[in-house]
Amino acid sequence: MPFTYSIQRILEIVGDDAQCFGEYQGSITGIGSLSEAVAGDLSFLGNPKYRELVADSAASVVLLPLDYTEAPKAKQLYIKVENPSYALALLCRDMEKSLQPPAEVGVHPTAFVDLDAVVSPAASVGPFCYIGKGAVVGAAVLEAHVSIGKYAKIGDETHIFSQVVVGDYCEIGPRNRLQPSCVIGSDGYGYEFTKGAHQRVPQIGNVVTEADVDVGANTSIDRARFGSTVIGTGTKIDNLVQIAHNVRIGKHCLIIGQSGISGSTELGDGVVLAGQAGVAGHLKIGDGAMIAGGAGVPHSLEPNAKVRGPTGEPMMLYNRIMVLQRRLPDLFKRFDKVEKSIESLAKRDTHG
Amino acid sequence: MPFTYSIQRILEIVGDDAQCFGEYQGSITGIGSLSEAVAGDLSFLGNPKYRELVADSAASVVLLPLDYTEAPKAKQLYIKVENPSYALALLCRDMEKSLQPPAEVGVHPTAFVDLDAVVSPAASVGPFCYIGKGAVVGAAVLEAHVSIGKYAKIGDETHIFSQVVVGDYCEIGPRNRLQPSCVIGSDGYGYEFTKGAHQRVPQIGNVVTEADVDVGANTSIDRARFGSTVIGTGTKIDNLVQIAHNVRIGKHCLIIGQSGISGSTELGDGVVLAGQAGVAGHLKIGDGAMIAGGAGVPHSLEPNAKVRGPTGEPMMLYNRIMVLQRRLPDLFKRFDKVEKSIESLAKRDTHG
Amino acid sequence: MPFTYSIQRILEIVGDDAQCFGEYQGSITGIGSLSEAVAGDLSFLGNPKYRELVADSAASVVLLPLDYTEAPKAKQLYIKVENPSYALALLCRDMEKSLQPPAEVGVHPTAFVDLDAVVSPAASVGPFCYIGKGAVVGAAVLEAHVSIGKYAKIGDETHIFSQVVVGDYCEIGPRNRLQPSCVIGSDGYGYEFTKGAHQRVPQIGNVVTEADVDVGANTSIDRARFGSTVIGTGTKIDNLVQIAHNVRIGKHCLIIGQSGISGSTELGDGVVLAGQAGVAGHLKIGDGAMIAGGAGVPHSLEPNAKVRGPTGEPMMLYNRIMVLQRRLPDLFKRFDKVEKSIESLAKRDTHG
Repeated sequence: MPFTYSIQRILEIVGDDAQCFGEYQGSITGIGSLSEAVAGDLSFLGNPKYRELVADSAASVVLLPLDYTEAPKAKQLYIKVENPSYALALLCRDMEKSLQPPAEVGVHPTAFVDLDAVVSPAASVGPFCYIGKGAVVGAAVLEAHVSIGKYAKIGDETHIFSQVVVGDYCEIGPRNRLQPSCVIGSDGYGYEFTKGAHQRVPQIGNVVTEADVDVGANTSIDRARFGSTVIGTGTKIDNLVQIAHNVRIGKHCLIIGQSGISGSTELGDGVVLAGQAGVAGHLKIGDGAMIAGGAGVPHSLEPNAKVRGPTGEPMMLYNRIMVLQRRLPDLFKRFDKVEKSIESLAKRDTHG
Repeated sequence: MPFTYSIQRILEIVGDDAQCFGEYQGSITGIGSLSEAVAGDLSFLGNPKYRELVADSAASVVLLPLDYTEAPKAKQLYIKVENPSYALALLCRDMEKSLQPPAEVGVHPTAFVDLDAVVSPAASVGPFCYIGKGAVVGAAVLEAHVSIGKYAKIGDETHIFSQVVVGDYCEIGPRNRLQPSCVIGSDGYGYEFTKGAHQRVPQIGNVVTEADVDVGANTSIDRARFGSTVIGTGTKIDNLVQIAHNVRIGKHCLIIGQSGISGSTELGDGVVLAGQAGVAGHLKIGDGAMIAGGAGVPHSLEPNAKVRGPTGEPMMLYNRIMVLQRRLPDLFKRFDKVEKSIESLAKRDTHG
Repeated sequence: MPFTYSIQRILEIVGDDAQCFGEYQGSITGIGSLSEAVAGDLSFLGNPKYRELVADSAASVVLLPLDYTEAPKAKQLYIKVENPSYALALLCRDMEKSLQPPAEVGVHPTAFVDLDAVVSPAASVGPFCYIGKGAVVGAAVLEAHVSIGKYAKIGDETHIFSQVVVGDYCEIGPRNRLQPSCVIGSDGYGYEFTKGAHQRVPQIGNVVTEADVDVGANTSIDRARFGSTVIGTGTKIDNLVQIAHNVRIGKHCLIIGQSGISGSTELGDGVVLAGQAGVAGHLKIGDGAMIAGGAGVPHSLEPNAKVRGPTGEPMMLYNRIMVLQRRLPDLFKRFDKVEKSIESLAKRDTHG
């Protein structure tokens, strides 16, 4: 992603109290970690444990904390600030704005909007988007090939990337970001086995996302059997996540890549579900619970519980079990020895 | 999803033999579980274990079994029927029909149908659909942005949601439901390592789904290397499932979210693969086998086998192992003690 | 997938030195394994362990190794060649060419190409494709509903299947194959918790795929926080895989279905990640490492390491642990006995 920043512009962004050491004549055209940066790049010391990498970095400009004392090399500029990570964030935000200027307002000539849909004049509706009957789209951005079902609602300042499907009757809150190819409002997976076959149970509910929800690429969120599958304010969902019907997720949760939540389970606020974890259905997961990567959770969890492993064990116990497992081969050997010792003791005892 | 039902209409649907207790003047505009329902909602007692929740429910109307004896509150109507779950299902089916009226027959003006494709006059082809050369589409519904590859076939009464891809030469049976963004007929993953690189093995087969198959959102089913990847009649596949090339799935199987089946494996009839489970390649899974959530199955299974855990252990054994694992820390401690006791016994014995 | 091959055409393809035994009058219209092939099919003996299946095969034509000595049945033709698998591959490649003739060059009338995009005159751009501002598309094939973001680059001879999204600024190398509905360049999952909410960290990098990369259906590859997420030459990625921001994958790796790689992790060359495996973030996985199906890897790996299990144990150790686990119920019983024996020995000892 091409950009060019002058030193002057960088200093304007990171603030007045920055202190400069050394000299670099030229522009910045890239950002890289201390070890990967090349000439022309800006780098930074965000974590003190990488302090030793600074001296060897080929970056032309390095953001450093105030207490860093070494001197820069020739043709290198050190910029010392109170919080290098924050300074970097300010820079990145500025770069993002120049790389992603605001989308053009209006409906692209190739898009199709049903006559009975209502689209805000402040919305940006991209190429080949489809907006169904009765849908209401706020001041949102829809990139290309987005499909908005009938009677669906899209909140203001929401950004919907290409090829997202928002199903009929679903409601997307304000300031959501829906990554490419995610599906909001697929049918819940509900069947009853009668007359020798799985009969579909009607799924007449919807999905409701509150404010500031992010949904990752290729993630699926099923509509409720009735009522709503709900994603709470500020919850961030990663790629390839499965959220089943009637799940209710609280506020500010992190649901990380390839994890899954089965039907009707409720998550409190601030729950973290790490990658590839799974939670069974009809459970309650308390506020602040943390579920480790790859864990399987078959039971409800108390607030702030920390669990791991295929049966959702307390994290400390599971870690201990994992260490002891490695000693099982040794244990079995020791055990054979013990049995023999007892046998021989018993014999001696008898003949003693 | 907005709807309004009068009490009279509800009684028409649930049948003549319903018995009414109490009185509610007004309409029903929602459905909710006993604990979540609010005024204006209908609720139900489907499972006897929730009987105690009935008295506290704020629902305006509650479907109850005939043997329920308590009286309703003021402004509350109890409707007693033989099978409240069945009565609810009848209601939901009626609501679904009003929420999802039949799709308009015909080809949307924005769709593109190849001149050499054959589309039934009873089909509904939605906005921006693409139907390739030689494809044959029956009396099916295609929502928006559906991609039907060349020479593909789509059966009657099949419903294809938005942004589904059916690849070239694939055959979808009658009464299938393909949820949004699923892919039928991606290339099988087959390579041979020669000349220093992975060379692609041609994948010239297709995918065939029989009647009444459901496929979930963002699920992928790969085409066969040659011949067909086959999904049997009545099998229901959930979201984000991976089905590799040349897999053959029998009839009436349930393949649940995020599970995966590797190449050339065959499933019998009535197999259940729970969430996030995986089955290795070239195996035979017998009729009625049940594979627990998160399990990994590295070997073939007998009919009606029940397995769990990362190595596909018999379920009873795995459950026992999981219980004993929790006692490993204690076992190791006890074991240290035992070794010391033996040592001291041996000493005494020697000096005794 | 329909095709018809005469015996003469088959012999032309498999080469001059083929030896024919028996006689089959007719054409070949299918390929099947020895046990599944029916009359009219061609089959083959690729793996010597299936030698006994040859005699019972109903295939009309069988490719066999030179050292196969049994005689064909009536109306059956045996073709002996040095390497039956290679002969089959030659046939399949020929069939693939006839089933998949070269895509028509040019931009489909329903596609939308931004005025500021550059598309090679040798490219094939399918129905409803969208190509954004500043994008550069080489002599590639784009099937239907493909979305190419602004300033993205697509290499020559790359084949992009339907409904793929290539995000803004991403660069796809030559001879890539991107399967349907995969997403290249979704936002990385990066947040900082401040002011009571998860604040999005700008993701201003891109994704770069080198030459000969394959990406599976419904797979997601996130763009870098800054710099690039990189997929090395010849690496083949399967369906439903998650690749997080700033991951760097070396050359000729195999990343199999539903596996996931967390942020900033680096894979060397020739790494194999089997199905449903996961690798944590900020790790280094050495060249040639093999990670078993379903494994979870929480630490970096040496070159050629082979690991398995939820904590990434050495494969031999994990296999041993799995065997011993099955003996835990027995061990606990034996252990109870041992404790009793010691007690009784201690008693005798005391009273002896």
